[in-house]
Amino acid sequence: MRKICVFLGGRANYSSIKSAMKAIKEHPDLTLQVILGGQALTDKFGDLEDILINDGFSADEKVHMLVAGDKPVSMVKTTGLGMLGIADALEHLEPDFLIVVGDRYEVMAATVAAAYMNIRVAHTMGGEVTGTIDESIRHAITKFAHVHFPANKDAGDRIIKLGEEPEHVYVVGCPRVDHVHNLLERDPSMPMDLYEEFGGVGPEFDLSEPFLLVSQHPVTTEYGEAKKQIIKTIEACVRTGLNIIILWPNADAGTEGISTGIRQYREEHPGARIHAFKNLPNDVYTRLMKNTACLVGNSSSGIREGAYIGTPCVNIGSRQNGRERGQNVIDADTDEDQIYEAIEKQIAHGPYPSEPIYGDGHAGERIADILSKVEVNVQKRIVY
Amino acid sequence: MRKICVFLGGRANYSSIKSAMKAIKEHPDLTLQVILGGQALTDKFGDLEDILINDGFSADEKVHMLVAGDKPVSMVKTTGLGMLGIADALEHLEPDFLIVVGDRYEVMAATVAAAYMNIRVAHTMGGEVTGTIDESIRHAITKFAHVHFPANKDAGDRIIKLGEEPEHVYVVGCPRVDHVHNLLERDPSMPMDLYEEFGGVGPEFDLSEPFLLVSQHPVTTEYGEAKKQIIKTIEACVRTGLNIIILWPNADAGTEGISTGIRQYREEHPGARIHAFKNLPNDVYTRLMKNTACLVGNSSSGIREGAYIGTPCVNIGSRQNGRERGQNVIDADTDEDQIYEAIEKQIAHGPYPSEPIYGDGHAGERIADILSKVEVNVQKRIVY
Amino acid sequence: MRKICVFLGGRANYSSIKSAMKAIKEHPDLTLQVILGGQALTDKFGDLEDILINDGFSADEKVHMLVAGDKPVSMVKTTGLGMLGIADALEHLEPDFLIVVGDRYEVMAATVAAAYMNIRVAHTMGGEVTGTIDESIRHAITKFAHVHFPANKDAGDRIIKLGEEPEHVYVVGCPRVDHVHNLLERDPSMPMDLYEEFGGVGPEFDLSEPFLLVSQHPVTTEYGEAKKQIIKTIEACVRTGLNIIILWPNADAGTEGISTGIRQYREEHPGARIHAFKNLPNDVYTRLMKNTACLVGNSSSGIREGAYIGTPCVNIGSRQNGRERGQNVIDADTDEDQIYEAIEKQIAHGPYPSEPIYGDGHAGERIADILSKVEVNVQKRIVY
Amino acid sequence: MRKICVFLGGRANYSSIKSAMKAIKEHPDLTLQVILGGQALTDKFGDLEDILINDGFSADEKVHMLVAGDKPVSMVKTTGLGMLGIADALEHLEPDFLIVVGDRYEVMAATVAAAYMNIRVAHTMGGEVTGTIDESIRHAITKFAHVHFPANKDAGDRIIKLGEEPEHVYVVGCPRVDHVHNLLERDPSMPMDLYEEFGGVGPEFDLSEPFLLVSQHPVTTEYGEAKKQIIKTIEACVRTGLNIIILWPNADAGTEGISTGIRQYREEHPGARIHAFKNLPNDVYTRLMKNTACLVGNSSSGIREGAYIGTPCVNIGSRQNGRERGQNVIDADTDEDQIYEAIEKQIAHGPYPSEPIYGDGHAGERIADILSKVEVNVQKRIVY
Repeated sequence: MRKICVFLGGRANYSSIKSAMKAIKEHPDLTLQVILGGQALTDKFGDLEDILINDGFSADEKVHMLVAGDKPVSMVKTTGLGMLGIADALEHLEPDFLIVVGDRYEVMAATVAAAYMNIRVAHTMGGEVTGTIDESIRHAITKFAHVHFPANKDAGDRIIKLGEEPEHVYVVGCPRVDHVHNLLERDPSMPMDLYEEFGGVGPEFDLSEPFLLVSQHPVTTEYGEAKKQIIKTIEACVRTGLNIIILWPNADAGTEGISTGIRQYREEHPGARIHAFKNLPNDVYTRLMKNTACLVGNSSSGIREGAYIGTPCVNIGSRQNGRERGQNVIDADTDEDQIYEAIEKQIAHGPYPSEPIYGDGHAGERIADILSKVEVNVQKRIVY
Repeated sequence: MRKICVFLGGRANYSSIKSAMKAIKEHPDLTLQVILGGQALTDKFGDLEDILINDGFSADEKVHMLVAGDKPVSMVKTTGLGMLGIADALEHLEPDFLIVVGDRYEVMAATVAAAYMNIRVAHTMGGEVTGTIDESIRHAITKFAHVHFPANKDAGDRIIKLGEEPEHVYVVGCPRVDHVHNLLERDPSMPMDLYEEFGGVGPEFDLSEPFLLVSQHPVTTEYGEAKKQIIKTIEACVRTGLNIIILWPNADAGTEGISTGIRQYREEHPGARIHAFKNLPNDVYTRLMKNTACLVGNSSSGIREGAYIGTPCVNIGSRQNGRERGQNVIDADTDEDQIYEAIEKQIAHGPYPSEPIYGDGHAGERIADILSKVEVNVQKRIVY
Repeated sequence: MRKICVFLGGRANYSSIKSAMKAIKEHPDLTLQVILGGQALTDKFGDLEDILINDGFSADEKVHMLVAGDKPVSMVKTTGLGMLGIADALEHLEPDFLIVVGDRYEVMAATVAAAYMNIRVAHTMGGEVTGTIDESIRHAITKFAHVHFPANKDAGDRIIKLGEEPEHVYVVGCPRVDHVHNLLERDPSMPMDLYEEFGGVGPEFDLSEPFLLVSQHPVTTEYGEAKKQIIKTIEACVRTGLNIIILWPNADAGTEGISTGIRQYREEHPGARIHAFKNLPNDVYTRLMKNTACLVGNSSSGIREGAYIGTPCVNIGSRQNGRERGQNVIDADTDEDQIYEAIEKQIAHGPYPSEPIYGDGHAGERIADILSKVEVNVQKRIVY
Repeated sequence: MRKICVFLGGRANYSSIKSAMKAIKEHPDLTLQVILGGQALTDKFGDLEDILINDGFSADEKVHMLVAGDKPVSMVKTTGLGMLGIADALEHLEPDFLIVVGDRYEVMAATVAAAYMNIRVAHTMGGEVTGTIDESIRHAITKFAHVHFPANKDAGDRIIKLGEEPEHVYVVGCPRVDHVHNLLERDPSMPMDLYEEFGGVGPEFDLSEPFLLVSQHPVTTEYGEAKKQIIKTIEACVRTGLNIIILWPNADAGTEGISTGIRQYREEHPGARIHAFKNLPNDVYTRLMKNTACLVGNSSSGIREGAYIGTPCVNIGSRQNGRERGQNVIDADTDEDQIYEAIEKQIAHGPYPSEPIYGDGHAGERIADILSKVEVNVQKRIVY
């Protein structure tokens, strides 16, 4: 029995790997282990452990690591603190592989810990190109990883160019798309019980009317601009006259800027038809993506799941630069007029046909299968 | 005035960057800052701060970070602890660039800290190929670095293949060679006061007689083998009948194995003509390299400075795999007979002519000059 | 020149020691050093560094240490993280004495760091008796401290009973009272520009009308009850019909409960005459205490500064148990009716005469003077 | 089932609590949990986990925390690092009580972690009086502990004076004496296989001849003096003409001084009849204490177990100041002549009768029994 450990830094990590976790758990030759860390353990952003248990998983180790403060120095301290805790956790669990997901800063902690401890690292969502420090983190993780599970061919080719052995680069598709695939097959309808279930703040407009969905994160290396940027986005959305559902951002440097911007706009425009939610479950969010008139912001979901779902999407600013995208995405600078015009175009167009750029819904099974068989030397060597 | 900060994790780091530090300190447009961490601060391996002060430098910040224990988990904890302390130090110093050297595990802490804090990273000795976890660390640092100072063209080409912008890859040569160049110009003679100055243990043979110089480090991913390997090396050396000077290893996972091996051999062979030193100053070591009949072990110095000096060198095992080498190096497996035969060949051959593979002695000045002028965006982007 | 270092974990620490800092800075034989840590460095709770600079001080070292999460485990991690950073800071500063204030959990980090590093510890506000984990922390700090500056005789006697040398227990009064003394001499009037200066949320009632002032913190060992308790307090206040100014709590385990309680009450009672402020400067708060009809909650300010000012105060629950109090305080359980009746009594009574239980306004000068002369062995020994 | 967790920072901790661990493990109403940390996990000082397993216990959690470096700042970093890891461990284990032993610096980490997390703390060996920073640590732990298990009545009285509730101060005797009691009942003879079993360095003199046993630790607050002190001790011992067995010290600030002193003396006096052992098992050490002509140094074992065994003991310097002692101990300053004369007196006297100052051999059972029944509020309150 191979022991496959997954590090989950937060909800986004979880929905990006859940289908693989399920497949590992069900695989006869694999045992699943889970380490929770980062935002996954702070009430403010939703207790992931409860969700895990509800989904039939459990947390083998928990590492409290999120350092407060809306500055880059906090990201470093979170990563260092994570490394300390994850080291003990890995020594306890002794996995054969550690799966790390994507490119958030705290994922570096898990990656370095495993690699230094001679534990093989498997990496999903590598090889993509974006803005912010995530760009460096993602490729650095690739240089530590022993097995690569990129979401599409473009990303896989980039990993090979980075000097990784082609035989250990497996283009499996994105496990987030698996999840979307399964979910929308079960129930694609608009979730009408949002207010009862998730509260939030702001007027309770009619959820059967058309609405915009806003999800915007701070861009680390432009830290300080976050508040101005979110206000421009909101103002562009308000000009369309549609109702607006807005989501609170993740805990990154710059988060406070976004949160303050949202709060300030709401206080200054008490009549604005904006309802803000904190921590909507991913399934609910996916069904909102299926039903929104347009997704606005800089979340990767618009590009990734959006391609599969066909969600009209306005992608703002540099955060997703370089990420391969389908026809459902219109890019805009952080400029109110550009954003407004792009949204109007998307509203006029309506839903797009599905494009399988980021997978066909079966990535998780492929990951489990490969990890049950792959033989890879713990000593890496660049190929050129 | 640009502030250029150097992170020094130990003596090896220092001799690899000292000439650049000097050039930065003397440059009219640059201010030098120094952060000491790792082995640099533990008595056991020599107090680097005293040496720095003696050389006209000072330590702006000190970060105690070395976690005890001869296991990979300690490497992770050291790195995490370093990250925590370096974050505060960088916030205090606010440098324009942080220079990180090479590929030791604790260098990762400084690299991640700076990159996350939007401080530009300059990396020396990137692009090379070796064994152990250093191989992954080196290339991961490249993916975080904004400016690259590889030691030779081969390494520079590799950095460009890794997707870095060619205009920020500067092949400057290795600053360690600068140091060797300056030193041997001043005094290439055998240091005859070793016993008086540095004590050590073992018989005090005549230093004007031919001797072997042994410097062997543990290979992390083969951790546990270290003791066996050093004993084979010593036995091969003893068979030559020459006197032996041996150095205690650095603090890595596996160090205890090497130390124990040396101790055990000496206890079991009380008559052996082996003298062991702890922490010889780099200058003394370099002059030993100039005068030894053969350097034996797996230190990078045999390949790097050895090429410049022309030291006959037997390089053992996988640690330096893939590193470009001159004609002065004969490789051997960790096999007593192979090692013995290689040493005999080198003794028969004698000193080699100098080869400038790793530089011509002026790398430090080039580094300072480039850092005083270079304009580079803090937001990195892979080129392909 | 003796170097006297002060550790400031947050604003409350600062107002508790500011007068001593001023006296140290002005003392001809002393140099002041400042380490900022904990809440002092997180935007969410106000950037103390700006305030310090504005007051003519500066931060010699900053230690990011506040770990997110509304659970006791976060308090431990904050303390551990603080210890790591404070160790480097103290090595850098090499003070003759470290002053630590009070009994918040992160103060333990500074205390242990200094004591282990053979730096003498001076402790203010020791010897008092309260509830929560602060009770244990305060007395443990006493056992590490070399010089004691209790706020009143009762506290001083208790420190002596704890086995400390009587000659190093100096009853100097509380430096917070110094501050109040100076401030109210300058300007005791109600600050009328609150809304313009500090924003806050809620209706902007007329500040010249009578108002209640609410400041309530979570009680750590009853964690989870926090939300219920604050709602009871608010409901009792609302029954009086007076306007209410309420303050957001500090970052402790349980804070989220208090914050959520306040938010929920406001959302459910949109017409409530409650205005909530985040991080009022201490001077403003003190002038509110001077002018409020009644201070309600469990802040130590009601007991300590309240005695000096004569503020009518209703002290709720166990948090201040055992703390010596003047006639200005009426205690109440966490019971809506009891709280309401106590408030009504206080409104009817009006302001009390000043009582110097916690000092006469000159503690800071005494502390500086003593620290410039005291000789105390770094090796402590219990007296019995 | 109550869960009773024990924190073990090293071998000394273990032999101080082993009999209680055994009794807890065998108690029908208790479950034993073990956290290993500090020296317990570093090869250099012996892997405690193997010993535990051999004794029928297991390590539920391991926390690598020992920071290298022979300076007080390393003690602080070790404690901070320990706190971070122990927090995760305690959250995982959720014990009803945490038992902490004695007064070593890293024990503070476990104590603070548990107390902050609302886990009741039981403390053994509190209330004693010694020198070094241990003195402050011990009493500070008392102020966090909920249940106290002092080794003798004198210590128990002191804990009560410190303001602890008398009903939770249980004078049970010292569990180390339990261990000695059991061991010597089984086999009190001199262990004759020392060289075969434990190697060590130095001449192999006849173990049936009379010998001195030397165990000396650095005194933290006099750090730097350690090397000089041990050399004086060795010289005094050598003057007696007896064979000498010397033990390497624990990892404290100052350890390197002791180690270097021993090494230096041996190198300078190659004929000296001194054999040095690293990490003798406690059982072997106890039997050496039973058979030595005189125990020399500053280990607490001379006073504590020595009283029970009747070992002639010369206690040097300030480290054990204030600790209650039997007639078997003669105190000496760190002065070669004084030490020599005291040793000669003890050799002349021979073994002493047993005194039960530190217990009768049944402390462990009492501890388990009390912890299975005691009801104690997690909220502490000083009694005066």
